[in-house]
Amino acid sequence: MNFCSKCGAPLKQRVPAGDHLPRYVCDACGAIHYQNPRLVVGCVAEHAGRILLCRRAIEPRRGYWTVPAGFMENGETLQQAAARESREEALAEVSIGSLLSVVHVLHAEQVHVFFRATLVAARYAAGPESLEVALVVPADIPWADLAFPSTDFTLRRYLEDQASGHEPYHFTTIDRRLQRSAES
Amino acid sequence: MNFCSKCGAPLKQRVPAGDHLPRYVCDACGAIHYQNPRLVVGCVAEHAGRILLCRRAIEPRRGYWTVPAGFMENGETLQQAAARESREEALAEVSIGSLLSVVHVLHAEQVHVFFRATLVAARYAAGPESLEVALVVPADIPWADLAFPSTDFTLRRYLEDQASGHEPYHFTTIDRRLQRSAES
Repeated sequence: MNFCSKCGAPLKQRVPAGDHLPRYVCDACGAIHYQNPRLVVGCVAEHAGRILLCRRAIEPRRGYWTVPAGFMENGETLQQAAARESREEALAEVSIGSLLSVVHVLHAEQVHVFFRATLVAARYAAGPESLEVALVVPADIPWADLAFPSTDFTLRRYLEDQASGHEPYHFTTIDRRLQRSAES
Repeated sequence: MNFCSKCGAPLKQRVPAGDHLPRYVCDACGAIHYQNPRLVVGCVAEHAGRILLCRRAIEPRRGYWTVPAGFMENGETLQQAAARESREEALAEVSIGSLLSVVHVLHAEQVHVFFRATLVAARYAAGPESLEVALVVPADIPWADLAFPSTDFTLRRYLEDQASGHEPYHFTTIDRRLQRSAES
């Protein structure tokens, strides 16, 4: 972030009066540009004992498998976002159920939220962001080729909960900031 | 949003290739500036049957009552954000418990998340963003002077759940967009 999106003047990073964190501040127009975590929303959609997975056609993690998920848009609910991503990535209509997982991905400045879901029908196909889409039995989940740790966490909790017959929600935190700064 | 925060050039609003919604796009450097809902996080903190409320010292809704809540920062979890807001607004240490409510505030482009919590001790005071802070019995909650619909929804569900002895989570959606455009 270099320039003020309101007036176009160069930005400085400093702690505004009454605040406690450095922000991007415009000395020309007075605007303060806050940066906050973005919501990524998805679902584990099941049909007849099989789970809907997408192989990513885009970066990051092109070629790896995930469940339908993406950035939440303004003007929609979390459940609508999860259903929309299933339509876009897997051309699949889903019915959204209970809250499954919330993953704080600190290094990416994202909060991932996943729901349980069911496919309305066994109709699905690769959307433009997917190389392929598949309905797989749990034994065939490609654990070594999952795109993201949040996908792995969410699918494991889903299967455990299914085995126990309950539908709790799960929180976890993933933080690769230390790792990244050690590498750089 | 008028100027590119990356290169300072004027922005246009149009649907980028492969997308389905209008975005702020920079034709000079190619940056696409997405706008996504922000997370507001708070808690209903209880101590000996009383609930912690803050009277707002800042706009919007200065002078009205709410529970400690505010914008989630990068680098923290939802629970850490809720505890931080209690420290900042009520100078109170809280222990965060179960997920209480998720409120989609569509007209504000926000998702509000509230947790159940307990005060670690009966110590609290007005932080810089509060006019006063109080521990009130449920009968004394100033329902007519609550700051936000999400505060009202969350406090009502909290008390109902307490009466029933369960700790479920609750989703709801508040949408004043139609109202606003009808007024303007």
